[in-house]
Amino acid sequence: MSKYQHIKQLAYTANMQLPKLNLVVFTFGNVSAADRDLGVFAIKPSGVPYEELTLKKMVIVDFDGKTVEGDLRPSSDTKTHAVLYSQWDEIGGICHTHSTYATAWAQSHRDIPIYGTTHADYNTVDIPCAPPMSDEMIKGNYEYQTGFQIINCLQERGLSYNELEMILIGNHAPFTWGKSAEKAVYNSAILEAIAQMALLTEQINPGVSRLKDALIRKHFERKHGPDSYYGQ
Amino acid sequence: MSKYQHIKQLAYTANMQLPKLNLVVFTFGNVSAADRDLGVFAIKPSGVPYEELTLKKMVIVDFDGKTVEGDLRPSSDTKTHAVLYSQWDEIGGICHTHSTYATAWAQSHRDIPIYGTTHADYNTVDIPCAPPMSDEMIKGNYEYQTGFQIINCLQERGLSYNELEMILIGNHAPFTWGKSAEKAVYNSAILEAIAQMALLTEQINPGVSRLKDALIRKHFERKHGPDSYYGQ
Amino acid sequence: MSKYQHIKQLAYTANMQLPKLNLVVFTFGNVSAADRDLGVFAIKPSGVPYEELTLKKMVIVDFDGKTVEGDLRPSSDTKTHAVLYSQWDEIGGICHTHSTYATAWAQSHRDIPIYGTTHADYNTVDIPCAPPMSDEMIKGNYEYQTGFQIINCLQERGLSYNELEMILIGNHAPFTWGKSAEKAVYNSAILEAIAQMALLTEQINPGVSRLKDALIRKHFERKHGPDSYYGQ
Amino acid sequence: MSKYQHIKQLAYTANMQLPKLNLVVFTFGNVSAADRDLGVFAIKPSGVPYEELTLKKMVIVDFDGKTVEGDLRPSSDTKTHAVLYSQWDEIGGICHTHSTYATAWAQSHRDIPIYGTTHADYNTVDIPCAPPMSDEMIKGNYEYQTGFQIINCLQERGLSYNELEMILIGNHAPFTWGKSAEKAVYNSAILEAIAQMALLTEQINPGVSRLKDALIRKHFERKHGPDSYYGQ
Repeated sequence: MSKYQHIKQLAYTANMQLPKLNLVVFTFGNVSAADRDLGVFAIKPSGVPYEELTLKKMVIVDFDGKTVEGDLRPSSDTKTHAVLYSQWDEIGGICHTHSTYATAWAQSHRDIPIYGTTHADYNTVDIPCAPPMSDEMIKGNYEYQTGFQIINCLQERGLSYNELEMILIGNHAPFTWGKSAEKAVYNSAILEAIAQMALLTEQINPGVSRLKDALIRKHFERKHGPDSYYGQ
Repeated sequence: MSKYQHIKQLAYTANMQLPKLNLVVFTFGNVSAADRDLGVFAIKPSGVPYEELTLKKMVIVDFDGKTVEGDLRPSSDTKTHAVLYSQWDEIGGICHTHSTYATAWAQSHRDIPIYGTTHADYNTVDIPCAPPMSDEMIKGNYEYQTGFQIINCLQERGLSYNELEMILIGNHAPFTWGKSAEKAVYNSAILEAIAQMALLTEQINPGVSRLKDALIRKHFERKHGPDSYYGQ
Repeated sequence: MSKYQHIKQLAYTANMQLPKLNLVVFTFGNVSAADRDLGVFAIKPSGVPYEELTLKKMVIVDFDGKTVEGDLRPSSDTKTHAVLYSQWDEIGGICHTHSTYATAWAQSHRDIPIYGTTHADYNTVDIPCAPPMSDEMIKGNYEYQTGFQIINCLQERGLSYNELEMILIGNHAPFTWGKSAEKAVYNSAILEAIAQMALLTEQINPGVSRLKDALIRKHFERKHGPDSYYGQ
Repeated sequence: MSKYQHIKQLAYTANMQLPKLNLVVFTFGNVSAADRDLGVFAIKPSGVPYEELTLKKMVIVDFDGKTVEGDLRPSSDTKTHAVLYSQWDEIGGICHTHSTYATAWAQSHRDIPIYGTTHADYNTVDIPCAPPMSDEMIKGNYEYQTGFQIINCLQERGLSYNELEMILIGNHAPFTWGKSAEKAVYNSAILEAIAQMALLTEQINPGVSRLKDALIRKHFERKHGPDSYYGQ
């Protein structure tokens, strides 16, 4: 048995959540699960539909993006995952989907404004939409650069990947991450719900304003602060 | 066997309706069921996903919000439930969700206008959106104050909790209530349907006007009046 | 065994289609099936949820709206059904729902414009939205008058119930009919699909114009004309 | 056993995907699968609901639209399929649906603009909406002309059916094609997803601009170019 069995299992289980949560059609998404000690992550193979996905088909890749174990090619987004794992020490899982509403915001080049406590329970800030890459970067090592596009966007806005676990890539779609692959998938589902509600909110009241600061702080702290007590 | 078994059962069954009715994702909601004679209510434990919820995990709380029985922490919204039970003598159940359309209206700070007989079958008035709390109240006993935010909103508008069994909390999400936990959940589903139809109505005809009074009275009275006969 | 067994079966089967086709929540709808020779129809009992509906619970009513057989009260919309059966000789089934998009158009007081061939396959005209009743009529025999509201609207527009089998009641919701209860339900599902597509069409192109006459005629005639050959 | 068994099987399987992928209600769609050597294709029979469809009911038709084998009438869209097979040498399957969002764009007479990489993974251009036919063509051999409407639209825009495998027919609905019936159905599902995201994108940001050229080329080439490596 592979010594990577545990992360294959985590990545497989997390990937299979995507169609159940209506976050993907066909092969539009991928999740990875990392083992920090071994310096590798398990990720979905390239182009395999979810109905045909098995634990054995998961591919093991190191943080430079090189395949370590597995018969199939890893997802074409693998280099983006590798960059994030190599730059961010404390994440254990990454998820990428083309979920409908989050992708529509990404295509619109707009941050998702914080309009309610559903959003504030997870983030104190608008969910950033990273700007499209320069033509130079696109022609180069594209998926690798996508990772830096994410890292740079957080840096420019003074945000830590520990506080904010989701982002939109302008013109493309969302990426989410977290302590585990399961948490990364959870964040993708939350992001999709927030994205849909934000659009509906603007349709109901085009002049709506962002949530007030006292509520942002209260909701985030009751869930994530030192004296957190939240749970519905 | 617990002497609270009957309300645990009612609360458990009602909570399990929420995912079936597409009113919640993950742990975004909670329902409680009260026993007026014993002065307590059963409520969902904090942060437990619906797939893992069991009857035994339900928590018993008194009307001051203190836990009376149960190994888990009660939902973080428990104090809001407690305030409503202590102030309103005749309700037996309360439901809170972040359902998509009702939450979007809440985030928009708008009452849901009465546009049709689907709405009028349940309410003679627009569904109120309580204003956000003052910063003072937010920093204080937040969930407790949420209860009074609901009570005050009804009072200011001259509405009784017996006539109107649903409300939006500005920036947050809906609360509904009723004679039983089952009825409270029913009201949450009705509210979500009304909320979606009201947005679509405004999109189809931005200049649409509210339902005329004769129809409001007719529909409400045939369902709730002394000579009620309604039932589809 | 009841001599009305056959229409009870037809009405029961047709009613049970409504939740499967996502046209109703809870008890928001009803279907009836008529026997022209016996001068009666079978209809859903009042206020019974679909999960609890059985063939035995169906109620038999004559064309004056009087109950002929059955232990339960018939749907509160029964008089509307009775009026349509008594006035229109050739229909065998009627369906009423509060389906989301059709109801939103009804609440908007707008006819559904004919924008495409999906619409033209069923109707050569915009789907009419009958105006709300006068206060006089509302205070009187309301459900009975709803039937005449439908009949008068068709008359004023010079339409036959044989050509057009669906209508919106302003402020209320849709009614559909047909040769059989099954066809009436089919028409409700078609209407809901047309209603959703029409709203989306206006959102994509606010200046869109109605379908041109040659296409309206072609599509309707290939399906319903003397030389009909249509079937996807 | 029929010598057409293999294409009957392919067409049957592909047709049964349509309701699973939520692309059709009732009988609103049809898929065909061609055998180039035998010069025929298998297609759905006319007006048969998907629940009643069986392998045996599939109809075999030649590229002139004449029935070669089968007890039922072929779909009324058969001539459109026949024209495309006879004019385009390299396609093995065709799919036609009235899926909600793609049909709404068709009714709106608008091309679907390329707003994101989901679109660019499949097409380098906006998805064309063919203009409605002239009245002359409509009154003539309508379904036959629909085929030429598709072919002419691609020609006028300088597009090859090998690069672009999907189109909207103005006022009507989408057609898609591909190497196989399975691929044609896949393209219909992709088109529906792209159509929904494009509308949402315009709603979130009415002033949004098309995807920049470098991204269009990159995404298309990594999936379809000579050095393609794409697969999520």
